[in-house]
Amino acid sequence: MSKAIFGVDLGGTTVKMGLFDTEGNVKEKWEIPTRKEDNGKKILPDIAASIKSKMNEQGMEKSDVVGVGIGVPGPVDGNGVIYKAANLGWGEFSVKEELSGLLGGIPVEAGNDANVAALGEMWKGGGVGYKNLVAVTLGTGVGGGIIVEGKILTGATGAGGEIGHIHIVDDEPDACGCGNHGCLEQYASATGVSRLAKRRLAKDDKASSLRNGDLSAKAVFDAVKAGDEVAKEIAVQFGHYLGKGLAAIACVVNPEIFVIGGGVSKAGEVLFEYIKDEYNKYVFHGSRGVKFALATLGNDAGIYGAAKLMLDVEK
Amino acid sequence: MSKAIFGVDLGGTTVKMGLFDTEGNVKEKWEIPTRKEDNGKKILPDIAASIKSKMNEQGMEKSDVVGVGIGVPGPVDGNGVIYKAANLGWGEFSVKEELSGLLGGIPVEAGNDANVAALGEMWKGGGVGYKNLVAVTLGTGVGGGIIVEGKILTGATGAGGEIGHIHIVDDEPDACGCGNHGCLEQYASATGVSRLAKRRLAKDDKASSLRNGDLSAKAVFDAVKAGDEVAKEIAVQFGHYLGKGLAAIACVVNPEIFVIGGGVSKAGEVLFEYIKDEYNKYVFHGSRGVKFALATLGNDAGIYGAAKLMLDVEK
Repeated sequence: MSKAIFGVDLGGTTVKMGLFDTEGNVKEKWEIPTRKEDNGKKILPDIAASIKSKMNEQGMEKSDVVGVGIGVPGPVDGNGVIYKAANLGWGEFSVKEELSGLLGGIPVEAGNDANVAALGEMWKGGGVGYKNLVAVTLGTGVGGGIIVEGKILTGATGAGGEIGHIHIVDDEPDACGCGNHGCLEQYASATGVSRLAKRRLAKDDKASSLRNGDLSAKAVFDAVKAGDEVAKEIAVQFGHYLGKGLAAIACVVNPEIFVIGGGVSKAGEVLFEYIKDEYNKYVFHGSRGVKFALATLGNDAGIYGAAKLMLDVEK
Repeated sequence: MSKAIFGVDLGGTTVKMGLFDTEGNVKEKWEIPTRKEDNGKKILPDIAASIKSKMNEQGMEKSDVVGVGIGVPGPVDGNGVIYKAANLGWGEFSVKEELSGLLGGIPVEAGNDANVAALGEMWKGGGVGYKNLVAVTLGTGVGGGIIVEGKILTGATGAGGEIGHIHIVDDEPDACGCGNHGCLEQYASATGVSRLAKRRLAKDDKASSLRNGDLSAKAVFDAVKAGDEVAKEIAVQFGHYLGKGLAAIACVVNPEIFVIGGGVSKAGEVLFEYIKDEYNKYVFHGSRGVKFALATLGNDAGIYGAAKLMLDVEK
């Protein structure tokens, strides 16, 4: 029997878990709730208990397990130390050492959730076949994960790939969640698209199906597909800001491919029509040939990437 | 006797060369002219001949040499293939293999000159003690070299660290050398500072020592140090654009330190007064603690970095 790896994706509401073989085939997937009370003290013990229970169920010994990979929602350095996860009530400590201790010494590797998801998309998702990849998650915010030569770019303090906070617009009156003004996230996230829509609709009275009330990113791109002119104007703005942001990223890391995921990406390849031209307009010519693809693993990117994180260390 | 390494920095006018021991002590430095005629066909044979001649002079055998590192002015991928060096008349070929062939099989490693210089500053210059570093060269243009975990970030097509072409200003009428409009290089290079100065002086008649005619970056920062108010306004603009650009870079790679070199950096630490506040204004909070230092190797950064490039592969 091939050895097993556990991939864990720790979110604010649920912990997603997967049992993999070393080829990356998922044998089982399950979830447990994230218990955030007492500053999140129960979270890692809950995860350890769930892994041990799964091992018992499967008749597995420690020696059958390569290790456990885990993605956590906060900056994690190259030693598996998390600096802060406000969302979970966590301060600074070694997730890697603590979880390994709870598992009787089974090896653990920890990374930032967005970075780990990028690794998952490279391994088994939209980025298969590439080693220099930027994963862009257009969800409530804009997250990023940068893979260089097959490895996560963690950064000095675990803040590598925080691409949602690249400054894009100078005269933005609203503040971003991070406190700055004019971050990419304010225009290219799901909430950002809604903001752009709201502003556009307030500008004049031009007819649009969006005036019916739903200004979600999904509603905007559905209207784009239905030929709504106002929705297309909003998509042009979205593409302008995101294209400009991705161009800045490419001038730094020169990737082979951008893999676009998150809720906004459910609109599909129509997004690329709005992003690509703007990207090519602003990027250095040496990075003009970059590819764009949709993420394919959805909510499973984190567990795949976590398993891969562990597997790469063991190899 | 410790083994020897040759470090070569191939420029448009001269080839700088250095003979190092494996600790990074330079034993000898010399230069030969860069003969660009015939599409640069003579360049690598000239370099090989100079290295062989130095080996003869020193009574060295092939077995005494670890190898040769070389930095070249164009995009070079991870396999030592240069894509194009218009400046030298070169098209696409493997610098690594061709130079090694000319040297009877002595190992060669090749990299982009700006990236290699960054490695040099990390090894023996302003970035000693750091492994996640961004070197910024403010010369005729703005070059960059990004070091992640002690290694050059080359990028998919050797265009990693092309930070001079990050888009910074939307309504720039003049074109950058790359063909785009509003690149960082148009404001933060030596020529960029002169442009900013020219524009500022044309705006009104406010008294300034700069009205005497010399608008070089050196003249501007000399005037800043002498308390010239107009020069300070120019420095504020320079710091605004460069701070914003470095903030974008930090949101991507989260370095420990920026090492600032090139002609403009001769102004010294006064530059940081103008860069740091703007950097901190625009960057994601996780990257606010980054350090700033001046490059210290000057024109020797390339030969040091080239030697280190070879040494790292051999280890």
